[in-house]
Amino acid sequence: MVTGGVQSLGEFELIDRYFARSTVAAGKRPDVILGVGGDAAVLRLPPNTDLVAAVDTLVAGRHFPVDSDPRSIGHRALAVNLSDMAAMGATPAWATLALTMPCADASWLEGFSAGLMQLADAHEVALVGGDTTAGPLTISIQILGYVERDSALQRSGAQAGDILAVTGTLGDAGAGLALLTARLAACDRAVADELIQRFEYPAPRVSFGWRARGIASAAMDLSDGLVGDLPKLCAASGVAAHVDVARLPLSSALRALVPASEARELALAAGDDYELLVAVPPRRLDDLAAVARQLNLTLTPIGELRRGNGVTWGFEGRPYAALGHGYDHFR
Amino acid sequence: MVTGGVQSLGEFELIDRYFARSTVAAGKRPDVILGVGGDAAVLRLPPNTDLVAAVDTLVAGRHFPVDSDPRSIGHRALAVNLSDMAAMGATPAWATLALTMPCADASWLEGFSAGLMQLADAHEVALVGGDTTAGPLTISIQILGYVERDSALQRSGAQAGDILAVTGTLGDAGAGLALLTARLAACDRAVADELIQRFEYPAPRVSFGWRARGIASAAMDLSDGLVGDLPKLCAASGVAAHVDVARLPLSSALRALVPASEARELALAAGDDYELLVAVPPRRLDDLAAVARQLNLTLTPIGELRRGNGVTWGFEGRPYAALGHGYDHFR
Repeated sequence: MVTGGVQSLGEFELIDRYFARSTVAAGKRPDVILGVGGDAAVLRLPPNTDLVAAVDTLVAGRHFPVDSDPRSIGHRALAVNLSDMAAMGATPAWATLALTMPCADASWLEGFSAGLMQLADAHEVALVGGDTTAGPLTISIQILGYVERDSALQRSGAQAGDILAVTGTLGDAGAGLALLTARLAACDRAVADELIQRFEYPAPRVSFGWRARGIASAAMDLSDGLVGDLPKLCAASGVAAHVDVARLPLSSALRALVPASEARELALAAGDDYELLVAVPPRRLDDLAAVARQLNLTLTPIGELRRGNGVTWGFEGRPYAALGHGYDHFR
Repeated sequence: MVTGGVQSLGEFELIDRYFARSTVAAGKRPDVILGVGGDAAVLRLPPNTDLVAAVDTLVAGRHFPVDSDPRSIGHRALAVNLSDMAAMGATPAWATLALTMPCADASWLEGFSAGLMQLADAHEVALVGGDTTAGPLTISIQILGYVERDSALQRSGAQAGDILAVTGTLGDAGAGLALLTARLAACDRAVADELIQRFEYPAPRVSFGWRARGIASAAMDLSDGLVGDLPKLCAASGVAAHVDVARLPLSSALRALVPASEARELALAAGDDYELLVAVPPRRLDDLAAVARQLNLTLTPIGELRRGNGVTWGFEGRPYAALGHGYDHFR
């Protein structure tokens, strides 16, 4: 097996050295009865809650450029999973890490674990188990959290007449990735930095999702782009959607980088934004907007749900031919 | 992206076609509030239980030969995780699958999902989520289960004076892998088939682990071989161990394949057996043996735990120089 320039480390030392330290060590999670080091973790849920579980995988060269900053890879690997918790309105609590990598490179692991642990600490998530194996770089994190019984947000709760809204701005992460891979170039360094930051360090909307329970009728996170994700919410809820493309929230950085038409395409189809897409009854929109304001987050109505099925896209009163397609790994 | 000879499938169709059917569909798990298809699964634990969570990854070419029967790969991917539940005395309930594969080959997926689902159904485990991504073949399963509060078996409970025992026979899976990869050859086809079966379709000792709670003082599963795994139990419990190598349980198939000395080496170091290693106070050994008998399983005392630390190996009254080393992916 090929090993890195740095010393080769044993599998179990790896876990100890880079990942055993976490909020558990700080004693912040007494609900971790048994953490890293056994055959399995033992965890205690609060009373009257349901367990919420999700898994997401990042593959080098597909979900991030192979030469990405390892700190960003660690951050994103956890962020995409926290975003799933956000979409459910769940409180993230624990995570396990399946890390496959070609060699045990100490400097790479330092960056990766720092990025992962910093975000874990910010959300008080304890890493409670893992498996490190040799092979092509692949990172799977399973996130575990909980939600008060029968209060989880789901994709299936939307009704015809609900307003469709999104948090934050769309398309920034896609532009950031295009800048990182030199498919786009920026004259203004600050613009480039801001957009690249949005790709490398997405901020999962956990607090917003948690507070949206009981207000929003449905939610999901935007990982594959609106064009790819919105049809899933419609199908799960049995409704149609109409989106006014002119209302898509675009950041000033994105508008400074590319023409408006290209910014809209990125917002529709590029993915990786990890904003939340929500459906909300019109009479509750003000309540949800207030939640967003309290979190210094924008919430932008972009369309509405209707009877029927499928998604239509409008722009300045005419049908808009959405050019992009959601990201699908096997198309 | 390279796709297989068979038609290319969409990511979400994949999940639906091969993995959405499971015990959930059969209505056997009303504790699955929301299964495959949302951003996360919502699951309900029985009262007065703790959550038990583990993750294990299989990488093609490292944990199994690249040309392995996909049915065996699916079985093993879940079996290694069920074995972690067995080691904790936990009841497995739900699993998520992170499947990375170079292409969506329908015939491979049919075999893989059949192997996985057959074992899942046998243990009434529901597949409640997953992520399929394109990349080199890597399979991570996270298993979720539960255990009555404060009753989980752990590696850390062993005491000096306890007897060390193992379920089943050791070394068979290592011999099976050697046969599969032509490092060993068998004249007798039945012998080869039996040993290969032990590698390809390990039987996790879930029922034994569950019943061993309250009897065994410590437990762990043997994935990396006794030489690699026993020191971890000793370290976790703060005890030393002495093993009588002559007492290692060897199957007649293994003894028919190789000389006794080689059989012992496989039993000590080859790994992949997924038997349970337990520590038990001498006065409770009969109770644990009775549990094994009820399950048609052998339980073989192989040594004892002592004050101190480290492991010593004896054979016919003399120290035995254990030649093998536990499997460590990054050595």
